[in-house]
Amino acid sequence: MAKLKSGALVVQKFGGTSLASPDRIKMVAAHVVGEKKQDKHVIVVVSAMGDTTDKLFELATTVSPTPPKRELDMLLTAGERISMALLSMAISDLGYEAISFTGSQSGIVTDTSHTRAKILDVRAHRVGEELKKGRIVIVAGFQGVSPAKEVTTLGRGGSDTTCVALAAAFDAEECDIFTDVDGIYTADPRLVPGAKKIDIISYDEMLELSFCGAEVLHWRSVEVARRFGVRVHVRSSFRKEMGTIVTAREEIETAGIRGITHDSNLVRISVRDVGDAAGVAERMLEALEGADIGVRFFQISASSIGKGIISMMLQRDQKEPALGRISEVLPDADLDTDEGIATISVVGHGLCSKPGIAKKILASLASLDLQPEMISTSGITMTIAVKETEAVRAIQKLHTDLGLDKPEGAKSA
Amino acid sequence: MAKLKSGALVVQKFGGTSLASPDRIKMVAAHVVGEKKQDKHVIVVVSAMGDTTDKLFELATTVSPTPPKRELDMLLTAGERISMALLSMAISDLGYEAISFTGSQSGIVTDTSHTRAKILDVRAHRVGEELKKGRIVIVAGFQGVSPAKEVTTLGRGGSDTTCVALAAAFDAEECDIFTDVDGIYTADPRLVPGAKKIDIISYDEMLELSFCGAEVLHWRSVEVARRFGVRVHVRSSFRKEMGTIVTAREEIETAGIRGITHDSNLVRISVRDVGDAAGVAERMLEALEGADIGVRFFQISASSIGKGIISMMLQRDQKEPALGRISEVLPDADLDTDEGIATISVVGHGLCSKPGIAKKILASLASLDLQPEMISTSGITMTIAVKETEAVRAIQKLHTDLGLDKPEGAKSA
Repeated sequence: MAKLKSGALVVQKFGGTSLASPDRIKMVAAHVVGEKKQDKHVIVVVSAMGDTTDKLFELATTVSPTPPKRELDMLLTAGERISMALLSMAISDLGYEAISFTGSQSGIVTDTSHTRAKILDVRAHRVGEELKKGRIVIVAGFQGVSPAKEVTTLGRGGSDTTCVALAAAFDAEECDIFTDVDGIYTADPRLVPGAKKIDIISYDEMLELSFCGAEVLHWRSVEVARRFGVRVHVRSSFRKEMGTIVTAREEIETAGIRGITHDSNLVRISVRDVGDAAGVAERMLEALEGADIGVRFFQISASSIGKGIISMMLQRDQKEPALGRISEVLPDADLDTDEGIATISVVGHGLCSKPGIAKKILASLASLDLQPEMISTSGITMTIAVKETEAVRAIQKLHTDLGLDKPEGAKSA
Repeated sequence: MAKLKSGALVVQKFGGTSLASPDRIKMVAAHVVGEKKQDKHVIVVVSAMGDTTDKLFELATTVSPTPPKRELDMLLTAGERISMALLSMAISDLGYEAISFTGSQSGIVTDTSHTRAKILDVRAHRVGEELKKGRIVIVAGFQGVSPAKEVTTLGRGGSDTTCVALAAAFDAEECDIFTDVDGIYTADPRLVPGAKKIDIISYDEMLELSFCGAEVLHWRSVEVARRFGVRVHVRSSFRKEMGTIVTAREEIETAGIRGITHDSNLVRISVRDVGDAAGVAERMLEALEGADIGVRFFQISASSIGKGIISMMLQRDQKEPALGRISEVLPDADLDTDEGIATISVVGHGLCSKPGIAKKILASLASLDLQPEMISTSGITMTIAVKETEAVRAIQKLHTDLGLDKPEGAKSA
């Protein structure tokens, strides 16, 4: 998409908490007008107000335990429609011209996978035309339209992804994700009091942190940002301070450990005493992939001669569909499920470049007498599965031992 | 639009009260499936759930006292989007295939007058395709799309109008308006205990009743029904009994008084001591027409030599814009407003054919010592403006004196 003739373009996303009430919507409107006064072109991507999406989802499951996904998308997209129209009104009330667009009107073209569609293309000519007229454009996040003109939603992290995709399409100077926290932290500050805000982080590290449980920025949006080189600023809606810049690695000096994240929304599914474990595992993974069920961890271990144990960890809300698929492949299998497992992930380029770090992590866990259930290392991330009850203690210990409590620039790792 | 190959087509509209909760939505779903089981094609037109539209409107005015109408339409259309998706889910849950469409997807093409758009055309090919597949089609009432692809709303009575327009487009065998009352009554049963349900009424009479205040069926939908000869059945969502059939006059035998309606949402605006009253009145009406403000009553009377009083009655919610327009035409005028006036309208073909009826109405009012503020007669309707405090007493007396308390077929009028 061609650049606009004059004035920088900013694309800013505001989440549900930032838009939870008429007063907060007015605050966001004032902020957006502040940007416009600096002679910038402004696109604002909005989520639904507060817990609207959850409430609509609850209504859906009240009328039908398994609502058709096409209709679920039709329902849920009402949420951003409300917030975008209200924000547009609040901006108009401050004397500035604004116009709101649905995902469809904004040209967010997706595939046909209702409730978890992927963006195929951004055909935002209407957005571009309105920007040229000097208007502030409000775009419904989280939603798009399939080539067959069906309304879709992007699933979790959808609004972040809309924001980054629009920033990429317009080659925006700034892409700001406004949220209810100050930025990305070295660990969850609710669990680790010494957690520090990260000033700048690479796409790769952010991707791993997001993928392994950090909820502030969804990994899908980070992937789009990396692909198109969009510099993303994650920051608080309620404060003026800088948050965290997510950018290419060249801009970042340190190469230690960037942060620790965790995920306790997982379930472990195990199959015991399987003959030809490798062959069975292949068919299981194929069946799960066919149902678009992602597997976080996968392990085969020997139990007795010729037999093996297959273990996998996946999102807890995919337990039922996953068990269904596995039963189709292994109708007689003895399936074990365990929801009391969490993963802890340590992320940083140092894991590649400094082998001593992996050793330090294992030593730290050993000092707690903690027996990891599984360990997996890939590139810049080491992930350890532990009992959920042990997770907080382990994260705190690792945060200290890896030097993340210290001010940035003085890390020992 | 071509007729469907097999099976009768019914178009049914359910209002907000009938869809106010998940339980009621399930009841409507069960009803709709009952129609489908009789091998009919079914289109269901829905309003927003309960008081959703009012709540959204309130949110709008909280963020902006004068929200732009384009954004207001974007906001309000979220209401039917929610109810249509939920109804579609509830039907699927009963094992029947359903699909919901917005006004835009249903091909309800309107002009560009946001918040009060008029339907220009119905291009419902997507609806037709889905019906041919055997699906139940749920359509968002009250909304449409302009030729420039902007989302519009139809204003008051919009869902009724959507329903009748679709019935006309598909040449439907039945057009049912399901509502929270049993049908059209000879007067408001809350005011007149002896009010009787009308079994069958002509388009003309229904149009007059609706236009003069009866809220069960909006006059715009009656106009569409008359134009395309759609036989409309107004009936209760909660009972099986027949309601009121609105149809062409040929089908109706009696030619007496059909019913009495009233309107207390009016304001009277008067201008005193105007020179060249007729000329000024013309300019006033022109100004109001330009702003699409409808005038219910209009009267000029002489006050002193060469001067006159201009009085008009219009919807109370149009008071401010009307006063604004009048001030532009008459910057120095002495404007009087009075919100304590109601109109009572007596409707029936008998008013044309039996002159004695008008005399009976005046005698009835005189017997109450009631001084009408204005009287106007046009075709099948006589409308009397009275003090609002006198309205109920007058309606009750007229209902009795015109024989409407008696069983149908035995009316003296």
